[in-house]
Amino acid sequence: MITAEQIKEVSRKTPTRIVLLVLDGLGGLPHPETGKTELETAKTPNLDKLVRMSTCGLVDPVSPGITPGSAPGHLGLFGYDPTTHIIGRGVLEALGIDFDLHKTDVAARGNFCTIDEKGNVIDRRAGRISTEKCIELSNLLSGIKIKGVQVIVQPVKEHRFVLILRGTGLSPAVSETDPQLTGVPVRKAESLLPQARVTADMINEFVSAARKLLANHRPANMVLLRGFSQFPEIATMKELYQLTPAAIASYPMYRGLAKLVGMNVLNTGGSIEEELAILESNYANHDFFFVHIKKTDSAGEDGDFERKVKAIEEVDFLLPRLTALNPEVIVITGDHSTPAVLKGHSWHPVPVLLYSPSCRPDNIAHFAERTCSGGSLGRFPARELILLMMAHAGKFTKFGA
Amino acid sequence: MITAEQIKEVSRKTPTRIVLLVLDGLGGLPHPETGKTELETAKTPNLDKLVRMSTCGLVDPVSPGITPGSAPGHLGLFGYDPTTHIIGRGVLEALGIDFDLHKTDVAARGNFCTIDEKGNVIDRRAGRISTEKCIELSNLLSGIKIKGVQVIVQPVKEHRFVLILRGTGLSPAVSETDPQLTGVPVRKAESLLPQARVTADMINEFVSAARKLLANHRPANMVLLRGFSQFPEIATMKELYQLTPAAIASYPMYRGLAKLVGMNVLNTGGSIEEELAILESNYANHDFFFVHIKKTDSAGEDGDFERKVKAIEEVDFLLPRLTALNPEVIVITGDHSTPAVLKGHSWHPVPVLLYSPSCRPDNIAHFAERTCSGGSLGRFPARELILLMMAHAGKFTKFGA
Repeated sequence: MITAEQIKEVSRKTPTRIVLLVLDGLGGLPHPETGKTELETAKTPNLDKLVRMSTCGLVDPVSPGITPGSAPGHLGLFGYDPTTHIIGRGVLEALGIDFDLHKTDVAARGNFCTIDEKGNVIDRRAGRISTEKCIELSNLLSGIKIKGVQVIVQPVKEHRFVLILRGTGLSPAVSETDPQLTGVPVRKAESLLPQARVTADMINEFVSAARKLLANHRPANMVLLRGFSQFPEIATMKELYQLTPAAIASYPMYRGLAKLVGMNVLNTGGSIEEELAILESNYANHDFFFVHIKKTDSAGEDGDFERKVKAIEEVDFLLPRLTALNPEVIVITGDHSTPAVLKGHSWHPVPVLLYSPSCRPDNIAHFAERTCSGGSLGRFPARELILLMMAHAGKFTKFGA
Repeated sequence: MITAEQIKEVSRKTPTRIVLLVLDGLGGLPHPETGKTELETAKTPNLDKLVRMSTCGLVDPVSPGITPGSAPGHLGLFGYDPTTHIIGRGVLEALGIDFDLHKTDVAARGNFCTIDEKGNVIDRRAGRISTEKCIELSNLLSGIKIKGVQVIVQPVKEHRFVLILRGTGLSPAVSETDPQLTGVPVRKAESLLPQARVTADMINEFVSAARKLLANHRPANMVLLRGFSQFPEIATMKELYQLTPAAIASYPMYRGLAKLVGMNVLNTGGSIEEELAILESNYANHDFFFVHIKKTDSAGEDGDFERKVKAIEEVDFLLPRLTALNPEVIVITGDHSTPAVLKGHSWHPVPVLLYSPSCRPDNIAHFAERTCSGGSLGRFPARELILLMMAHAGKFTKFGA
């Protein structure tokens, strides 16, 4: 396996451009009536034209058989091994609300919950209180003062919030307070490493203060915390590949992941058309574009086969605006499969096409799972895609003499 | 991944034979007018017959997206991971002129260069002096005496030479004297590890002596040195596989690489016909033959599509002499792609066929990139080829009970 240091050595800056178009949850499964997947069903004249000139294959986002969450799915596409670059749940939750996390912050996922008179948890989600109530109580908890650290409580949705401790010398090596069960008390946070003792004390102090402040807010009369984590150390795409990358994504989680690897996150509206307009207006200023389409995944998660087909067709309709820019490399794929028939993420490999004037076209007639499985890229780990994009963009020099 | 120790355990000596025919730079890209690659264009009746009985695929020489130099390209085919077995540039240059490098030698690439009165480099290549002048000046520098070490200076071509220090306790961990720029002085060699201090002093002494000797030879009035390196420690193919391998290659670089992994390097003329004659006359004495054809790569590097097609057809014409020997395993592939349209090495995977009476034939009608991409070997790292060759030759026993 080629190392990060070896990649750095062969990478060079060039004026060529790469567009990575990610249709979230792209891969599908056959509809029980037609025997065709979402991609096989969709009418995609523009994709058909592009795929004919492309080299194709199937990517495993993390590993064969592994169903990825959005974070590992995207890290793989950005060239990082998602099994070694782990992003904690607290950090992910903070990224998901567009919170500007600092390197030394410790973040945790929080739930408002209900405890009885004895202090035993009786509802881990506090009856799913309204988001309005969540905002009110998060503001209340933000008033908690702990010596030596700044306490930030950010509402997420319903009973969910993020706790951020901001200060120096903090460590995320702290056990969760969420017992994951009802009928038992909230756990005390314990340090898992000696350097986390102060942080564990602060968390216990926060929980005690929260219990007092929330006493009259039943069902939301207590908090549970888990997923203590810190921003991971990760080399940026600029450091590794000398790229000047930009992200065009409307959902906070994907914007956060892109920021994590050093992309310039551009402001965009939520529609595919708005995203393409942002691509056009920023095309001169970057040499790598990650464009994220959420609709395909949302439709798959809802089990709405037809809506997923329509989302693919909408991307196809707008594709000429992307190809008109004439990037040296276009890659179209997904971060994982979300087959409508499964109503959720799955482990199935994801079709990928790579178009470039320097590719060996496979002459595939329609972009879909089973056609791509015959493509010459074969089946390979998603994290190798960046190497192919770099090569076809002429951004790699020769390895060895 | 199976380990070298495990491979040793299952390897056994048998009288069966393997021929690995390497067409350098074999993989290509479509001609813009015909849409066909060099292999797709070539008329190859004999290859067509062989490929029909073969199992096929595409190999990545080093890693997807990585364009290999000749050394990593060949090490992969010989079964070594080219990302961990790095051969220094000094050693490669010595191999390239058929110099008999010893294990403890330190070799460096040298340039004759021009410096001005202040000692600043004004031409890193000394106006590309003639090879005759290079020979004369290399002989002059060979007269330099340094205490405790033998100094050998071998001419290469034009301004290029190889410096070899022969002695005991030498270390290649020395910084380059080549500033890679003009308008600045030649750098002093510095030790990068404590054990390299003596070597660094010797190199600086050599450079001072060279400067004095060359003072009246402007433009070649100074030397630049880089790529200090030693013969890498590498297990031979005999140690790993119990093979008695032979190399049939006319270019020094490939002969040197073959020697590095313990092959017996046979003397041969430069034509494909001469190489096959050597194969025939030495067929009884070895069980593994690496036969290297250079013409395909040279034509690709020159951007001469037609000449590359012709080189492939010449190999095809002579192929019956190889098949008539009836080796148990024939593998035909390249060390990398050199598409004529790119005029240089590239990262594209290389077609491979493996013929053996024990293979599952893919019934492919013509040996080329896109037909092989449908072969049952799929796309895989070149370094795994040796495992398939050994297996089909019956040279591996069962792994585990």
